[in-house]
Amino acid sequence: MDIIVLNPGATEKEFRHILKKLESRGLQANISKGTERTIIGVIGDTSKITEEEENAIRVMPGVEDVMRILKPYKLASREFRAESTIINIRGNRIGGRKIQVIAGPCAVENKTILMNIAEKVKEAGATFIRGGAFKPRTSPYSFQGLGEEGLKYLAAVRKKTGLPVVTELMDPRDMKVISKYADIIQIGARNMQNFRLLLEVGTSGKPILLKRGLSATIKEWLMAAEYVMSKGNQNVILCERGIRTFETATRNTLDLSAVPVLKKLTHLPVVVDPSHGVGKWDLVAPMAKAAVAAGADGLVIEVHTNPAEALSDGEQSLRPDDFMKLMRELKPIAAAVGREI
Amino acid sequence: MDIIVLNPGATEKEFRHILKKLESRGLQANISKGTERTIIGVIGDTSKITEEEENAIRVMPGVEDVMRILKPYKLASREFRAESTIINIRGNRIGGRKIQVIAGPCAVENKTILMNIAEKVKEAGATFIRGGAFKPRTSPYSFQGLGEEGLKYLAAVRKKTGLPVVTELMDPRDMKVISKYADIIQIGARNMQNFRLLLEVGTSGKPILLKRGLSATIKEWLMAAEYVMSKGNQNVILCERGIRTFETATRNTLDLSAVPVLKKLTHLPVVVDPSHGVGKWDLVAPMAKAAVAAGADGLVIEVHTNPAEALSDGEQSLRPDDFMKLMRELKPIAAAVGREI
Amino acid sequence: MDIIVLNPGATEKEFRHILKKLESRGLQANISKGTERTIIGVIGDTSKITEEEENAIRVMPGVEDVMRILKPYKLASREFRAESTIINIRGNRIGGRKIQVIAGPCAVENKTILMNIAEKVKEAGATFIRGGAFKPRTSPYSFQGLGEEGLKYLAAVRKKTGLPVVTELMDPRDMKVISKYADIIQIGARNMQNFRLLLEVGTSGKPILLKRGLSATIKEWLMAAEYVMSKGNQNVILCERGIRTFETATRNTLDLSAVPVLKKLTHLPVVVDPSHGVGKWDLVAPMAKAAVAAGADGLVIEVHTNPAEALSDGEQSLRPDDFMKLMRELKPIAAAVGREI
Amino acid sequence: MDIIVLNPGATEKEFRHILKKLESRGLQANISKGTERTIIGVIGDTSKITEEEENAIRVMPGVEDVMRILKPYKLASREFRAESTIINIRGNRIGGRKIQVIAGPCAVENKTILMNIAEKVKEAGATFIRGGAFKPRTSPYSFQGLGEEGLKYLAAVRKKTGLPVVTELMDPRDMKVISKYADIIQIGARNMQNFRLLLEVGTSGKPILLKRGLSATIKEWLMAAEYVMSKGNQNVILCERGIRTFETATRNTLDLSAVPVLKKLTHLPVVVDPSHGVGKWDLVAPMAKAAVAAGADGLVIEVHTNPAEALSDGEQSLRPDDFMKLMRELKPIAAAVGREI
Repeated sequence: MDIIVLNPGATEKEFRHILKKLESRGLQANISKGTERTIIGVIGDTSKITEEEENAIRVMPGVEDVMRILKPYKLASREFRAESTIINIRGNRIGGRKIQVIAGPCAVENKTILMNIAEKVKEAGATFIRGGAFKPRTSPYSFQGLGEEGLKYLAAVRKKTGLPVVTELMDPRDMKVISKYADIIQIGARNMQNFRLLLEVGTSGKPILLKRGLSATIKEWLMAAEYVMSKGNQNVILCERGIRTFETATRNTLDLSAVPVLKKLTHLPVVVDPSHGVGKWDLVAPMAKAAVAAGADGLVIEVHTNPAEALSDGEQSLRPDDFMKLMRELKPIAAAVGREI
Repeated sequence: MDIIVLNPGATEKEFRHILKKLESRGLQANISKGTERTIIGVIGDTSKITEEEENAIRVMPGVEDVMRILKPYKLASREFRAESTIINIRGNRIGGRKIQVIAGPCAVENKTILMNIAEKVKEAGATFIRGGAFKPRTSPYSFQGLGEEGLKYLAAVRKKTGLPVVTELMDPRDMKVISKYADIIQIGARNMQNFRLLLEVGTSGKPILLKRGLSATIKEWLMAAEYVMSKGNQNVILCERGIRTFETATRNTLDLSAVPVLKKLTHLPVVVDPSHGVGKWDLVAPMAKAAVAAGADGLVIEVHTNPAEALSDGEQSLRPDDFMKLMRELKPIAAAVGREI
Repeated sequence: MDIIVLNPGATEKEFRHILKKLESRGLQANISKGTERTIIGVIGDTSKITEEEENAIRVMPGVEDVMRILKPYKLASREFRAESTIINIRGNRIGGRKIQVIAGPCAVENKTILMNIAEKVKEAGATFIRGGAFKPRTSPYSFQGLGEEGLKYLAAVRKKTGLPVVTELMDPRDMKVISKYADIIQIGARNMQNFRLLLEVGTSGKPILLKRGLSATIKEWLMAAEYVMSKGNQNVILCERGIRTFETATRNTLDLSAVPVLKKLTHLPVVVDPSHGVGKWDLVAPMAKAAVAAGADGLVIEVHTNPAEALSDGEQSLRPDDFMKLMRELKPIAAAVGREI
Repeated sequence: MDIIVLNPGATEKEFRHILKKLESRGLQANISKGTERTIIGVIGDTSKITEEEENAIRVMPGVEDVMRILKPYKLASREFRAESTIINIRGNRIGGRKIQVIAGPCAVENKTILMNIAEKVKEAGATFIRGGAFKPRTSPYSFQGLGEEGLKYLAAVRKKTGLPVVTELMDPRDMKVISKYADIIQIGARNMQNFRLLLEVGTSGKPILLKRGLSATIKEWLMAAEYVMSKGNQNVILCERGIRTFETATRNTLDLSAVPVLKKLTHLPVVVDPSHGVGKWDLVAPMAKAAVAAGADGLVIEVHTNPAEALSDGEQSLRPDDFMKLMRELKPIAAAVGREI
């Protein structure tokens, strides 16, 4: 809280009451009396003023509005750390010059299919394998994932291909088992404000892929990263995956402008998931290219050898051939923005 | 999945392949050849077709679109159960003729304040006490609740006032401790699609107050209820608390039309939380009245004896006097729609 | 523009350049140097600073943000005029104690049907007849209205029933013909920011029913009213009719909280159109009741004797019997909020 | 309208009544009786069924829902015309291999500034000059444009530089004067559903740059194009410029996925305006690159020699140097997607 705007009708008594409140918190007030409003600039270490105190001041008699100038997140901000964060995972540097590609099926279904997909995406140039063992599904009657069995398949794939594993955690009680197998722990869009889960992965020692919530503002998203970082885990990767809007032609609206916006606000790496963003496989390639052109540090792409039989999200999965073609086409775009892939 | 629309250019072979797929699932096809499109009506027990299979058909060659006629939720639907559900909690019947009012502070802060608020809201006619002991906060640096200490204060309040207790569960690991004290377990908006938490409370034996997610459609909300009900817990109360839109004049946009829409689609009781819906105390009273007029079975209202010192959401809390005035003003509106309060 | 926030890295030279700019505009600066930001409070008659100048300052080197404290609308604001505006149209006072009901078909189709509807809604208690002679339709192949012929039917209805006429203007070239027949000129949601049309009706001498745009904020809506008022026409009636959100269970999301928000911000009367807001006839009655409970000054309701044959919006029209029942049910709700109907 | 879903409780009489209605329109019915619903597939030339008739059937007793299979637009659809439309304007082919760049100030302010900007953008490779002579502004107190004077300056610029002119039409009464000077007539976002204006430019004989409305779905946007085309003008260029969402970090949310979606649905050229899309000059370059990578046929970019003194939208204007740098950087991206710039 940095600026307090008074009501045009605020009384002298109300005014003094507010000043006293600030004083009691060790803050000074700089008063600007305009022709129509009086404004109080709050001077001192306002970063210690909590959201609660800000709201309390907002309801004091005589107050019209309170405006906070400082950003509510600290550790995640570029002001706190000017240099871009690079996260090194088994030699793959997320946030560095090379664009990292996390590819694989939506859900882990069986070992053979997964291995097959993994070998194909590796050949095409992917640098991470992804696949859900615990799946958040809108219906309780849908396939919910293979659980630890699926995690074992992912580990087997890593052993054979060398690709590090990205997989989702949905429940704090699964932290141990996920940590045993994952190289990067994914927090899904629906859990972006599951604050307990965020605190939990803050102590995991693993890099976190934090997907943007369906209706999360960029500020709220950075606050979610701040939750993880406040527990000591500075390795957070932000993943834009589309927001909910009125448009129904695509599954979500991929907000690519979030990429340059985040590059200004935070030092954390930013990746884009065009598969969930658009929800239709034939729109994935153009949006993957656009994401790289906009400055993304990486891509998350769903690939399946047989989309028509996939147990989850087949509609938005690329076939290995299409994925390989896309990887080839991304090369000159990455080069055009001073990156490689 | 009930209707399959073919591409104008679908080949005979693709067409036969789709028919074979349906046959293999024990389903029959009724074919309508129009001038511009061929449509397949799928006959048989299509409710057994999973979302996965639906998506798989959607990506088969020759298919343009797949439309599901049946609703994806069952136990929650009015078709499954025509009679409105009434949930009896210590004699207070939610969903009955009497409008239930759940009132109290956003967060439990200390025993004296809570008791004071509880006695005042009881006197005014509230039938439940609410208060968070575990608080979801957008900032990790904000007050996160008193934990079990707060639950004990709520129980003490119940003992003294007789008001049953509504409090939020954020983490499956807190289920035991919450169940020990709560009469109704609240699932907050940010956890509406925390599917593990939903399954957990499905086995709790306690009625669930399920808040609508910030960007949840009514269908997704009913699917979340279905998660709880699929575990055997039929006592779900739906709570409209505002959705996220482009408008910033209010904290959220309270979607009161959800009340009559839900009354058609489901047999579950529907309550409205105008405090979170609008986020400003002086808008709460008109929206509470509107909610009752629209047919809500209950209200959730934040009340605090000293909003300017509240540790959470002071901005939207009513003072006890304003709450008492509101309760008086609600009486003739309830009567006008054939209810009492 | 009242507050200028400087970049943490703003130089002394940039700072002085900004101060000089303010001086050149006859404004004074009150400087608050905080620990992390410097803030300039601008003192003087800032209402004369245009949006252009505000934006110009925003891009000056050293400026991080510019915040405007004063509202951008003046004539429409409650601060400009504390007393609520009442608009008297042939004895019906919009904004007074009595809730006004504007009823009728979406489009004027033929004289007999219109007269029949008008007589029925009058009998039920409606105080205005509505009907479109010029219709905005999403498809160029849909019925576009009868034009002046339709206006003549409306005038005939007024002559027989005494109900004043509300009808929409879509094109500045139709101002003359519409003015000849209408008592209130409606500006539709899609034209809320058709600024030329707003200026045109600002000189019409007729009261204006200004519908909220599908994605208009309350502030933009008041700016649209300001356009009309800036030309000398103070008789603007604001009509909430639903905004566009992600929810598809209703045609739009009726934002009833706009009613109490507007009552604080403006002195203009506020009416609600639940028919367009929800788009389904069986949701109209509960939302009409909710609108009155929320404090609306009037209702706009579509009524048709034969919705299944209506040339426009049959889906959301009430039959005369249902309308009569609704009018009866609204009486005790109006009484409960100190109004009559 | 192609599919009618009956209520589970529809009576035999209601069913026969619906069939008779279809018959009376020369349509046949193909009936699918499922276990839980009966579905009627409507066969025949359903494209002649108007929206009104569709709505009328929707409210017939026994009907639960009506689903339209065919798209409501025809002339704009790829099915109607498979080959992509290329619009040739003084030798610049919009929709061809070369990406067209429309650059210039938001508003025409004076002749010298405009000429200066035009010469600089031409040098950098722009192929069209843009500038508003009639400006839609949210405030009636803001600069509204120079009118015909501004158009004359644009014509002078064209004479000197050879750049064809793009300028906005806001009012049907200005059609003649705009047509006298413009090479492309722009319809702004706020007028996308100003249907009278659309019909007017349908007879103008000039190519139309049709900006997407702030809350327009892609389908509604194509319907707006259909309005223009229904009057005989097939030269419509669609311009994505951001939609309104809950996110406030950018002025609008630029929906780049609209580009590949449109490329499937329509043969019309698609251009992108990143300046309005993001509203901040330093986000324009990454989003311009992303737009080209996503497959856009052109760009609309605001350029001003002195953004801090611009009378409109200075905040989002590039300086000529930045624009020149961007044009250079776009070259390899255009090449990567098989285009040139």
